[in-house]
Amino acid sequence: MMAGMEITLNAPLDMHLHLRDGDMLKLVAPLSSDFAGAVIMPNLVPPVTDPGAMLAYSERIAAAMSGEPFSRYMTLFFTAQTEQQLRMAAETPGFFGYKLYPAGITTNSEGGVANLAEADSTLNMMQDMGIPLLVHGESHGFVMDREAEFLAVYRNLATRYPRLRICMEHITTAAALQLLEEFENLCATVTLQHLIITLDDVAGGALQPHLFCKPIAKRPGDRDALLQAALSAHPRLMFGSDSAPHPRCRKEACGCAAGVFTAPLALPRLAELFATHHALDNLQDFVSGNACRIYGLNPVQKQVTLHDTPMQVPTAYRSYGQQVVPMYAGEQLSWSVKR
Amino acid sequence: MMAGMEITLNAPLDMHLHLRDGDMLKLVAPLSSDFAGAVIMPNLVPPVTDPGAMLAYSERIAAAMSGEPFSRYMTLFFTAQTEQQLRMAAETPGFFGYKLYPAGITTNSEGGVANLAEADSTLNMMQDMGIPLLVHGESHGFVMDREAEFLAVYRNLATRYPRLRICMEHITTAAALQLLEEFENLCATVTLQHLIITLDDVAGGALQPHLFCKPIAKRPGDRDALLQAALSAHPRLMFGSDSAPHPRCRKEACGCAAGVFTAPLALPRLAELFATHHALDNLQDFVSGNACRIYGLNPVQKQVTLHDTPMQVPTAYRSYGQQVVPMYAGEQLSWSVKR
Repeated sequence: MMAGMEITLNAPLDMHLHLRDGDMLKLVAPLSSDFAGAVIMPNLVPPVTDPGAMLAYSERIAAAMSGEPFSRYMTLFFTAQTEQQLRMAAETPGFFGYKLYPAGITTNSEGGVANLAEADSTLNMMQDMGIPLLVHGESHGFVMDREAEFLAVYRNLATRYPRLRICMEHITTAAALQLLEEFENLCATVTLQHLIITLDDVAGGALQPHLFCKPIAKRPGDRDALLQAALSAHPRLMFGSDSAPHPRCRKEACGCAAGVFTAPLALPRLAELFATHHALDNLQDFVSGNACRIYGLNPVQKQVTLHDTPMQVPTAYRSYGQQVVPMYAGEQLSWSVKR
Repeated sequence: MMAGMEITLNAPLDMHLHLRDGDMLKLVAPLSSDFAGAVIMPNLVPPVTDPGAMLAYSERIAAAMSGEPFSRYMTLFFTAQTEQQLRMAAETPGFFGYKLYPAGITTNSEGGVANLAEADSTLNMMQDMGIPLLVHGESHGFVMDREAEFLAVYRNLATRYPRLRICMEHITTAAALQLLEEFENLCATVTLQHLIITLDDVAGGALQPHLFCKPIAKRPGDRDALLQAALSAHPRLMFGSDSAPHPRCRKEACGCAAGVFTAPLALPRLAELFATHHALDNLQDFVSGNACRIYGLNPVQKQVTLHDTPMQVPTAYRSYGQQVVPMYAGEQLSWSVKR
């Protein structure tokens, strides 16, 4: 790699972010501040289901970021909503869309939807009102098949609600990418880790809890297809870290919780990855341009410059009595944010 | 299930057992004493490669079992052995066969064979001398494909050495069972856990380090095929627990070691499993008869009676400063050993 490379990104966005609440929120929110904004997931305990709670959560995030300019694209936990509920949500400042979780499939999603037929009128109204539907697309089947099995649901949604903006969140398979080609109303996010790792990295050697997430990392062919789509700035693929902090004690124990914490190193690692593959020119679209065009976003003005100067990733981020272990803990990345 | 069921097994054998050494050996060896004997794996640190070390290890096992009658079928770590080395091994009391590990594939197998062509003369002599070859059959490929990819090696071995007794250890796939049908000189062991769990149990919910082993548990169709073969007492399929104790601290940490500890509960759980599937009549062949016939074994006389009276599995087995967490830790099985 040529020394002295750098790239300046306009308004990088994290289109899928878990910030949690309380002390964990205070620890992790500032670690996303190189981004201009993020789509904030609603799976708190209890989940964020009403606009009032969403607004209060958005304000707690602003406080945790200490006034740092940051576009908070807030989501509500999807259940069958009435028209009045949808209108109230749509009128609430910062509201971005609904997040649909199949019941019980991931962290704090026990209250998710089990049967989409019950939500038909809600989905019809959402497409009329231009409210996006973000979906955690996994069936309850065998762990390696869950996303592939869910594609039939995406196909059904995309066909039935042709004007509904449906985002396949954190896709992990080549099959999901193929589906993206079939429907103009589908878009997708992909995480940092799913561009890089496979199940081998999680369970092929020793078991690696800090790389365990849902959907689980898949096969090499899936990872390669996702990476190629990201590097080529596929116009309906957006970066969404799904950065999901858990306390260290919940990751390094029996029954480790699912989630990889990548927020503080996502931009340097993406720059490194795109530079390695001679695709730096496409990074802007992947981390911001596509999302702004797809959703019509106008995030806060923020530029971040990344350069090929090493970043030492901490073994853990500690504050407010919380401790979170990031991906690449204790390792060195070859790119960093230029301060 | 009818109450009051029981079954008496003659000389149950564990055809694949890790007893480790030192304090761990002292803890776990007595926990296999309901078996009449076991094939003992040689992957100590350093591995057991010469007959003298093997004999000394066998005596340490006898001491750890405090004189309990127990047939110790000892194995040596396979390398390209000379004729004289093979003869010395064959003449050593308790010698059973060689265990072949593809280099670096599992716990303490760093010294394994990388290229079987180098071992051609050794394998020819082994078939002439009637020495079995036990194989950890995994490639270095993607974790879910490793056994399937290794089947070509088994096929090659079985074709090239038609009189060599080749045991596919701890098989985990339906494809391996199919291969068993093709070659009379192939036999196989299967563990308790691979009759019961899939990758879902390891990584489908929260990550479960105590169910993490190599080869990793596979798909539901694989598990179902293995269970059917065991329940029907497939004549070349034998029970081998691959019970593999690790200190608790190495299982419940980042980089958890591979291995499931099942020795103390394997017979009760097998009885429960076979009873549930109305196949108790086939348990004798699966846990002893097939092995005695295939290898011409004549283990110590020992009978064990299992009955449908609950067994409370401890949360951990502790002794000699060691602590090992078994499968089903803290749970209750519906069958137990009748004392």
